[in-house]
Amino acid sequence: MSIAEQIIAGDVRATARLLRDIDDQIPSAREILKDLYLHTGRAYIVGFTGPPGVGKSTLVDQIAFRYRKDGLTVGILAVDPTSPFTGGAILGDRIRMQRHFLDSGVFIRSLATRGHFGGLTRSTNDMINVLDAMGKNVILVETVGVGQDEVEIANSAHTTVLVTIPGMGDEVQALKAGTMEIGNIFVVNKADREGSRKTVRELRTLIELGIRRREEAGWEPVIVETEALKGRGVEDLYQSIQNHKEYLLGDREHLKEALRKSARSQLVEALKDQALRSILQRLEDRGMSLDVMVQKIMNKEVDPYSMVEEVIASALRS
Amino acid sequence: MSIAEQIIAGDVRATARLLRDIDDQIPSAREILKDLYLHTGRAYIVGFTGPPGVGKSTLVDQIAFRYRKDGLTVGILAVDPTSPFTGGAILGDRIRMQRHFLDSGVFIRSLATRGHFGGLTRSTNDMINVLDAMGKNVILVETVGVGQDEVEIANSAHTTVLVTIPGMGDEVQALKAGTMEIGNIFVVNKADREGSRKTVRELRTLIELGIRRREEAGWEPVIVETEALKGRGVEDLYQSIQNHKEYLLGDREHLKEALRKSARSQLVEALKDQALRSILQRLEDRGMSLDVMVQKIMNKEVDPYSMVEEVIASALRS
Repeated sequence: MSIAEQIIAGDVRATARLLRDIDDQIPSAREILKDLYLHTGRAYIVGFTGPPGVGKSTLVDQIAFRYRKDGLTVGILAVDPTSPFTGGAILGDRIRMQRHFLDSGVFIRSLATRGHFGGLTRSTNDMINVLDAMGKNVILVETVGVGQDEVEIANSAHTTVLVTIPGMGDEVQALKAGTMEIGNIFVVNKADREGSRKTVRELRTLIELGIRRREEAGWEPVIVETEALKGRGVEDLYQSIQNHKEYLLGDREHLKEALRKSARSQLVEALKDQALRSILQRLEDRGMSLDVMVQKIMNKEVDPYSMVEEVIASALRS
Repeated sequence: MSIAEQIIAGDVRATARLLRDIDDQIPSAREILKDLYLHTGRAYIVGFTGPPGVGKSTLVDQIAFRYRKDGLTVGILAVDPTSPFTGGAILGDRIRMQRHFLDSGVFIRSLATRGHFGGLTRSTNDMINVLDAMGKNVILVETVGVGQDEVEIANSAHTTVLVTIPGMGDEVQALKAGTMEIGNIFVVNKADREGSRKTVRELRTLIELGIRRREEAGWEPVIVETEALKGRGVEDLYQSIQNHKEYLLGDREHLKEALRKSARSQLVEALKDQALRSILQRLEDRGMSLDVMVQKIMNKEVDPYSMVEEVIASALRS
């Protein structure tokens, strides 16, 4: 059996090995990804995003447990921000999820993305494809932070859950600008804390003000209050995800558009990544290194703008 | 006078126009950036980063005011996360900074970064160069969130201030993995809130545990408690920034290494960005569009991995 066939058959060790190779950005992984691609497109993908400290992992854990009750298999990808210094992520709060480790219906993986040149979004997309091809019914993707990466990863999810906590509202402006648009469902976690109702009201106002561009004409973003640690609100959140899924399946045109957007964003990411790699490789083959280029810029022999133009012009076919 | 000369002479309108062009990713801006580059390298750059809601804008505002008391001119760049949907950032809490608007020694600009293909880091670097060439003595860069963008923007700063608030410690793990390494100074803002001392203790433990890789052998990261709205702790923060600056200037080798890292990261970002643009342009010239490629992938006529290889191979010189 080829590695791809092993993965499609649900082999955990073959899957783990491929995911590690993707994380390490080993080129041979791409050949297997090619073979797996035809087997993707069946999983339902739910993204959980929001700043650190809001309890995303615990929510993901609870929702995974809920899907298991339905008899569905679950893949979990926890995407930590790239740490170019330590070369890896700290797994601390993943430990809470240990109860799933004995359940073969759940596959958990934490991304470290060691590359110095980004590639976080691309690795995540690749890993989603692997878990999809492996046959997981539901894939839960947890992303930390607010930024371009999160917006791009959200493009790959069918349903995006934005998580916040009470008392983060002082500068909701910042949150709004970045992520309000990508949320289908909003969660106010740690809802036992002071100010929870106020945060819910603020979110509702923002949604009503239409700051979120209404791409989804028939879907009114839902706000759910949870206390993930106690399991409170988890059933509501689960139902909201199911409702959004039904909404998506009921509007074929919209779903197709969402899939197109996701495919487009994945393609752009991969192109960017691969273009950089290929150009740097070519430079190296010609005895020119990034370090030499950097030195020239530091010496002010050349400005970086002209340098980039020159490198691109010499690397691309005219 | 050329536009570059006007900017070097400190012309506010010419500068504002160029920054807008950079934000709109208008290609002609690059020619001006080339001319400005020789005039960069004089400003001191301080980055402020951390999740939304922690009061970064208020801190930046106070620190700008403090630098003005020293008679130094200040440039402020507020980087909001890219919002590909609304096409812009909401400026809400910038209003607090209005007192600077009548002060010609302060130049404030908020980045929207409208591009669909990222470019946030690149635009920020370009804008830092412009304010530097314009003659601002100090440039304060405020970034929202935790993620790859922030790590890359931090590479451009001489001093990076990581801002948090009490009670965000439940999942400090997440924060650690992404940003602990980039902070030279840690601020616990809203220090009047419950749990401030606990957060300080946690940060100190993390620093001592050496999770932050000690690239700066002689610099022990400092933790400062502030209440930015009342101005409390601002003088401490200011002094800490000055101390870190003196430390940097006292260790030429380390400073050079930091500048090299920054130049390298800027070059990589620009290469990636420009490579994608050029490749897409070439495809378009040959009547091939991203949309057609996406359609083929959606139809499963081809997998995205093979598609990327094919496009890169046909665009690059062999």
